[in-house]
Amino acid sequence: MPHQNLEIKILDCTLRDGGYYTNWDFDKDLVKIYFESFNKLPVEYLELGYRSNPMKSYLGEYFYCPPYVLENAKALSNKKLVVILNEKDIRAEDVPDLLSPCVGYLDMVRIAIDPKNFKRALVLAQAVKKLGFEVGFNVMYMSLWEQEKEFLKQIKDVHGIVDYFYMVDSFGGVYPEEVKKTYELVRNQTDVKIGFHGHNNLEMGLINTLTAIECGAAMVDTTVTGMGRGAGNLSTELLLTSLNSKGLIDLDFNALSKVVDPFSKMQNEYGWGTNLPYMVSGAHSLPQKDVMEWVTKRYYSLNSIIRALSNQSQGIKDNVDLEDFRNNKKFKSVLIIGGGPSGTKQAKALNEFIAKNPEICLIHASSKNAKEFKDAQQLQIHCLAGNEGYRLEKTFNVISDTKKIVVLPPYPRTMGTYIPKSLENVAYQLGGISFTDKFKESVTALAVEVALKMDVESIFVAGYDGYYGDITPQELELFNENEYIFKKLKEVSGLIPISITSTSYTELNHQSVFALI
Amino acid sequence: MPHQNLEIKILDCTLRDGGYYTNWDFDKDLVKIYFESFNKLPVEYLELGYRSNPMKSYLGEYFYCPPYVLENAKALSNKKLVVILNEKDIRAEDVPDLLSPCVGYLDMVRIAIDPKNFKRALVLAQAVKKLGFEVGFNVMYMSLWEQEKEFLKQIKDVHGIVDYFYMVDSFGGVYPEEVKKTYELVRNQTDVKIGFHGHNNLEMGLINTLTAIECGAAMVDTTVTGMGRGAGNLSTELLLTSLNSKGLIDLDFNALSKVVDPFSKMQNEYGWGTNLPYMVSGAHSLPQKDVMEWVTKRYYSLNSIIRALSNQSQGIKDNVDLEDFRNNKKFKSVLIIGGGPSGTKQAKALNEFIAKNPEICLIHASSKNAKEFKDAQQLQIHCLAGNEGYRLEKTFNVISDTKKIVVLPPYPRTMGTYIPKSLENVAYQLGGISFTDKFKESVTALAVEVALKMDVESIFVAGYDGYYGDITPQELELFNENEYIFKKLKEVSGLIPISITSTSYTELNHQSVFALI
Repeated sequence: MPHQNLEIKILDCTLRDGGYYTNWDFDKDLVKIYFESFNKLPVEYLELGYRSNPMKSYLGEYFYCPPYVLENAKALSNKKLVVILNEKDIRAEDVPDLLSPCVGYLDMVRIAIDPKNFKRALVLAQAVKKLGFEVGFNVMYMSLWEQEKEFLKQIKDVHGIVDYFYMVDSFGGVYPEEVKKTYELVRNQTDVKIGFHGHNNLEMGLINTLTAIECGAAMVDTTVTGMGRGAGNLSTELLLTSLNSKGLIDLDFNALSKVVDPFSKMQNEYGWGTNLPYMVSGAHSLPQKDVMEWVTKRYYSLNSIIRALSNQSQGIKDNVDLEDFRNNKKFKSVLIIGGGPSGTKQAKALNEFIAKNPEICLIHASSKNAKEFKDAQQLQIHCLAGNEGYRLEKTFNVISDTKKIVVLPPYPRTMGTYIPKSLENVAYQLGGISFTDKFKESVTALAVEVALKMDVESIFVAGYDGYYGDITPQELELFNENEYIFKKLKEVSGLIPISITSTSYTELNHQSVFALI
Repeated sequence: MPHQNLEIKILDCTLRDGGYYTNWDFDKDLVKIYFESFNKLPVEYLELGYRSNPMKSYLGEYFYCPPYVLENAKALSNKKLVVILNEKDIRAEDVPDLLSPCVGYLDMVRIAIDPKNFKRALVLAQAVKKLGFEVGFNVMYMSLWEQEKEFLKQIKDVHGIVDYFYMVDSFGGVYPEEVKKTYELVRNQTDVKIGFHGHNNLEMGLINTLTAIECGAAMVDTTVTGMGRGAGNLSTELLLTSLNSKGLIDLDFNALSKVVDPFSKMQNEYGWGTNLPYMVSGAHSLPQKDVMEWVTKRYYSLNSIIRALSNQSQGIKDNVDLEDFRNNKKFKSVLIIGGGPSGTKQAKALNEFIAKNPEICLIHASSKNAKEFKDAQQLQIHCLAGNEGYRLEKTFNVISDTKKIVVLPPYPRTMGTYIPKSLENVAYQLGGISFTDKFKESVTALAVEVALKMDVESIFVAGYDGYYGDITPQELELFNENEYIFKKLKEVSGLIPISITSTSYTELNHQSVFALI
């Protein structure tokens, strides 16, 4: 069978690393195709997911891998099966509960480790080893190891405990030369079998893995279509195709394309793979976690992410500590205008509503519909997060009207601060955002906080259309965020905003602007 | 400005190489953003497109680069401007007409060359040089040069004529070691400045380019988001980010993300970038041109492309020379059933129509709707192209009914032949497809050819819904292909098929199945 000329073992961790995009839920049929296809592919190990103590938020099937998941995998797969533990959340005393149910199903248990916790991880590893599993150590941040003198000295203690010692290119910023150097760093300490887990921010996944193999690595990781956190991993199909063309393995392309096909379709939907923000974070060893959150959310533009990253990479603090926003004039009510199409579609009616309510204050949660209301006589507050400043600047070339001010998130801001020149003297920041524990940088949270600061009796909203029909995961996420924000508002203040344009939000009360004019 | 520590010059050829996806038409606003952004980026040369003698089919603005295009570029850009010539289509005597109008706008003219025509290319180059341009030689197929002894000896003749001698990784299958070796091959012949143009099939674009730079290359090519034929190129943003993080260049990330953003959006639509078929073609030095055509068409599945490629790479002829399809029984009419949703939606009515017309023959241009008609008593002919065999097999687990036969394209077939076991004894091939000059492997062309062989009086079609609203470029292409096939049918035979389900095709006559039952 498969590995004629190849010493190296391949571990596919699609379900584990891919879970960062699906929250560790995978369709049953997809999982079946996955196992059945891999039965015909020259890959030795399949990593199914995590085993974990209960976490606070919802995490899917493959984050916990309950025994029935392992049983199903064992029934469908002829491969060695693996789960991974997050060292930071698990102690040696958790091991019997977590792993005894896995005996008989799993061949290897891996542990994801911050080098800072290496000593503690060895204690955990011993408990795992006691249950008879092969033990893999996935040690993160390999690009920083050279500076971690303490850790380097500890590596040799893996002897007799750890079977595979992985170098993990956590930031995806390592080049082949560094793979070689780091391999030697480890090899100089111990004769443990060495593995490599690469990320693809700089498209170095394949060449780094081939380099590790050349150095003598015993095991390397891949995922189908490179599915994995942020920019993702070396793709299984690329490594297999490359090794096959070098004559090192036989390859059933039919089986390979059968598993690649459904994951490619998911990739079109979720969009993993490298892009400019991931390139910048990789090249500068900035954490993927934040970047992935920014990229998959819709409200930060490529531009603002890149600016924030390049500032971070150069150590530039682009945050200006502005004067806090304070409310000088009382308003009975506000109208928060979001970016949904109804904001423009019903602009005529909305403007009549505004004209009829001189005591109302306009809060723009988005610049998208703002120009429709440029003639309104009331105070208009523009919430600027991410690159809204650039958008707003485009909308109002010169903003001289004294009735406009802009409000930014509390200092310091993740995404820097761009404030159009013409607005600098009317720019304020919020002292804090207290009504919600999450999504504090969302423009809707900003708008709601401003309304609360004004102590209003009622909040009207328009341009919060929500979504209908087929929606993307990003749209769903944004929708859920706004729902959460409205719910928190109600909990804290008793206020339920009244949507006066068409909406699918359930946390809003509904009225029609046409009934109010 | 830009290049503090870097000797190397970067040439961006997005509009030239990206044209393979847009047929060399680009939106005016996009082009403006392109030039304005690059004005702030450390890139020396911009290649705008081709200059070309008139070609038979439609090719867009940037394939011909008429003088007004150059004038516009010159007005917007502060970079050196370039066009490229296809050596195979252009002779020295064409040069005055083609390039005199470019004097004053362009700094360099490149020539894309098959090493086999190297001598002839030098004559062309001399004519270009005479007009005062810098001359670039983009010599293709670098992975094969080692075997081209004749060509290697000729390289030194570039002296005094060629300014930049490019190694082009045409298949995208070259690894860093081969870049080094090929660089030395050239350097041993001549001291000409050497360039590198990489493709990204194996994600080797960046590492190969960095390797070329390390070797001493004087110029390298990139495109924004890697836009380019098939798997595409090294992306401009990746090279710039990498060089910036190494401290070799300053980089205005704002300008960079401004140009990356709109091209990323186009990439979502057109889908360039590597995938399994491109990986296989790259790894085995198979031409990108065919693969790109298969991948961007919808009627070949990933599976069938991979099978065809892996057979090609292993020199396996998977084509079986079948018995030719002959018509034994006369039919007055046929019903061709396509894969559109109406085939299933109106299955009840269609089955009634079929029952009422015992003299009709059913031709399935797709397996998608086939199972809806499994009880029909008439002869049913299934057209198998690409992997339709696999789909059909899934639909009918055992096909024992003697009234079914399958028809394949003429021998030999591009995409191999998968014939389900149970259908092997009822499988035929067409002797040829003569009514159309194009799209001969499309299932609709197969179905029409079968109908013509039967000498029928009328052709009914169902399940040819066409597309409404926002359609993808692939859908549009398929739609246009079918329209072309129907038009050709009419020209050759006078027959206009009658669609009896809802359709947006204009080359069909319209009727309703409900009026016929």
